[in-house]
Amino acid sequence: MTLSPADLVITGCTALVHDEHEGIDFVEDAAIVVREGLIESIGPAAETAVVATAERIDARGQVAMPGLINCHTHAPMVALRGIAEDLPAEAWFNDVIWPVESNLTARDVELGARLACAEMIRGGVTCFADHYFSMDTVAEVVAECGMRAHLGEAFFSSLGAEGREKSLEFALRHRGAAGGRITTALAPHAPYTVDDADLAATAELAREHGLPVHLHASESRDQTDNSLARHGVTPIEVLERTGLLGVDAGVLIAHGTGIVERDLPVLERATGPVAVATAPRGYLKFAWPTTPVRALRGIGIPVGFATDGAASNNSLDVWESMALTALVQKSTEGDPRWLTSRQALHHATLQSARAVGLGERVGSLAPGLRADIILVDLTGPHTQPVHDLAATLVHSARSADVRTTIVDGRVLMRDRELLTLDVAATVRELEERLAALTDRSHGGRIQDYDKPPE
Amino acid sequence: MTLSPADLVITGCTALVHDEHEGIDFVEDAAIVVREGLIESIGPAAETAVVATAERIDARGQVAMPGLINCHTHAPMVALRGIAEDLPAEAWFNDVIWPVESNLTARDVELGARLACAEMIRGGVTCFADHYFSMDTVAEVVAECGMRAHLGEAFFSSLGAEGREKSLEFALRHRGAAGGRITTALAPHAPYTVDDADLAATAELAREHGLPVHLHASESRDQTDNSLARHGVTPIEVLERTGLLGVDAGVLIAHGTGIVERDLPVLERATGPVAVATAPRGYLKFAWPTTPVRALRGIGIPVGFATDGAASNNSLDVWESMALTALVQKSTEGDPRWLTSRQALHHATLQSARAVGLGERVGSLAPGLRADIILVDLTGPHTQPVHDLAATLVHSARSADVRTTIVDGRVLMRDRELLTLDVAATVRELEERLAALTDRSHGGRIQDYDKPPE
Repeated sequence: MTLSPADLVITGCTALVHDEHEGIDFVEDAAIVVREGLIESIGPAAETAVVATAERIDARGQVAMPGLINCHTHAPMVALRGIAEDLPAEAWFNDVIWPVESNLTARDVELGARLACAEMIRGGVTCFADHYFSMDTVAEVVAECGMRAHLGEAFFSSLGAEGREKSLEFALRHRGAAGGRITTALAPHAPYTVDDADLAATAELAREHGLPVHLHASESRDQTDNSLARHGVTPIEVLERTGLLGVDAGVLIAHGTGIVERDLPVLERATGPVAVATAPRGYLKFAWPTTPVRALRGIGIPVGFATDGAASNNSLDVWESMALTALVQKSTEGDPRWLTSRQALHHATLQSARAVGLGERVGSLAPGLRADIILVDLTGPHTQPVHDLAATLVHSARSADVRTTIVDGRVLMRDRELLTLDVAATVRELEERLAALTDRSHGGRIQDYDKPPE
Repeated sequence: MTLSPADLVITGCTALVHDEHEGIDFVEDAAIVVREGLIESIGPAAETAVVATAERIDARGQVAMPGLINCHTHAPMVALRGIAEDLPAEAWFNDVIWPVESNLTARDVELGARLACAEMIRGGVTCFADHYFSMDTVAEVVAECGMRAHLGEAFFSSLGAEGREKSLEFALRHRGAAGGRITTALAPHAPYTVDDADLAATAELAREHGLPVHLHASESRDQTDNSLARHGVTPIEVLERTGLLGVDAGVLIAHGTGIVERDLPVLERATGPVAVATAPRGYLKFAWPTTPVRALRGIGIPVGFATDGAASNNSLDVWESMALTALVQKSTEGDPRWLTSRQALHHATLQSARAVGLGERVGSLAPGLRADIILVDLTGPHTQPVHDLAATLVHSARSADVRTTIVDGRVLMRDRELLTLDVAATVRELEERLAALTDRSHGGRIQDYDKPPE
């Protein structure tokens, strides 16, 4: 028995845990003891009922599970949710998104980030990997709202060497910020907007500073085909030849729906950790193929769940990404037995944590890991009765069933009430700015899609 | 000005209405006046603010829209939610569902129906087309809980003529019940479980009694291929040759994912109304193709949204069916511009109402139609800001955003609180019965899949 009281004890829940083979398991009537931001113990309630505690949450009828991780997003783009609908990717980028993004101010980014964090906390997301501009303001919002985040300042080669330097400067300055809740990455946009020299220099900087890299690559089959036509190599082969597959701290590839057969041996022989983030909703909407999760699993590459930005995905609902991945993978592979609910939960927990380089800190409810925990209410009629709890979580529960969201042992949402963010005030100010933000009369764009550097 | 007070006035909402070309339109700051179960007026709030009323709902920040219609389900199967996961359709039917269904008692069906209605009301569903057994009890639950329903007692030819007679007897006895909220259909199971003679007799009865028919047909491509191999005709051609495409009150075809090119002229020359219900989630899960919505639109056949039973779909979430249809249709057709949010809302409203034969009574917020209305809260962070309200509804909002559900002018859920059903008591009793319900040791089945009558 420890003498000082625990910070938080959660009792009466069913806890999602991993067995020694990483299988999904459930402990009924569990108690979780949290101390100084860490999970101190997790086990049958009877054994922990006597722990003195500053705060106790009675979670009967609820499942405790690791907080969801949004492995690739552009959080501030919630400001553009619904602005460009029912368009192919090129028109979406060139005609709407990139002209509008050239209007972005740091204040827009801040308000967008605040709204995005509110949405994610409400949806049980405790950590997100963000890839955008004016990231100082995103870091501030993360520090303030209590989430965990893996942040990278995006750059294009069209910005010159300055872009890369700014990305490095951001990554070094914010690494370990917000009491360790912020980790950072170098964030080149993509092989079609960042040239090989710039990518190679990025890989060099990543090795020199022990930083990971987060970028878009092989987003669609068209990108792969264009890359082959123009350069004779796939985007994944570009990553290899520029050294990005040999970064010690790892590379996180967003999307990878254009990963083809010849890419698999390339990824398999990578000398640094590689992971892929899948955001299946947008692929359906753009009529793209989906991430080849089964092939990636075959070569041991973790695939984490993501939403991409809300301007394409329309939400930051990682719960939906989990369900959609299960459904779309079955459909795409023509195999109803593939990507079971337990496999989906493995992606949502351990694989997503590894994808953002946090596999040693989060992704499982286990002693010694950070206390990033969500409590999911299964008493609603749509989640009853429970014949198969994994299936209930993946296929019946919804993000709105998350009642409580905890990061580093701190409660950010209790009984659906946000404790660290003011949605109404954020929306009010954002709305006043929308006319200026969405003005496209200037005719400019921050970047062109499908006009790669030669 | 009417002298007697209106039953209900909803003020301050944005109302989804249809223009004269059936286009989706929105009236801001609208007021809806309901009297004796009907929409008396809908229009700008200023003009109706002075109506005296028994009940007033302030719906600022909310969208009023026609209640969703679940055009094909087996409501009581919520009792089996999650019982047979990650299986191909044949194993799902033969190894689990049909052995378990042979245990069903009327009490199980009643509890399942009650839980299902609770789930649907919470998800903004005001009407459902149900196709199951022991339907007397479903009708009782509908009468009690206040929903609208289109009910059919299912039968197989393996039951002999008695099945068909029971289906007819049910349809005649309950037609117009629950103050007109219940309509009925004859409900043969499917062309692979009901023989041609039985289908032809059903068509004859339907014509004689002015009843519609609701059945599964062409559920999967395999069914079409099997039908062609065995009988030389597709399931849709079976419907034609047995007279089911010439029923005045209409035929509602569940699924139709196996509808092929040669079926289109057959459907087009149907002499009675034909509609299709699409439940895309289960098709993804079974790795089936999806309903050819675009081809059906080309020949003027309404396609309504549905969930099928929760044993395959895992929920009765019609909102999700709407979003998934939009996404899957774009993906399947390879066209991001197809099935826009406004088209999805047209399917969810007018087309779904027509699919269940209620196009003259519900499906739009217009004077003279029944007051089946839902209020959807868009103040959550995941639905802000609103650049395109149709897209917000289809792609960002979720069933949990429905705050209030009204059928025939009666409030069934207010601020997410169910007023006519007790979920906890239902779940408690259902749980006690699950062991007996799910017992498969008897080795029997109510039916075999893929063993059609010869």
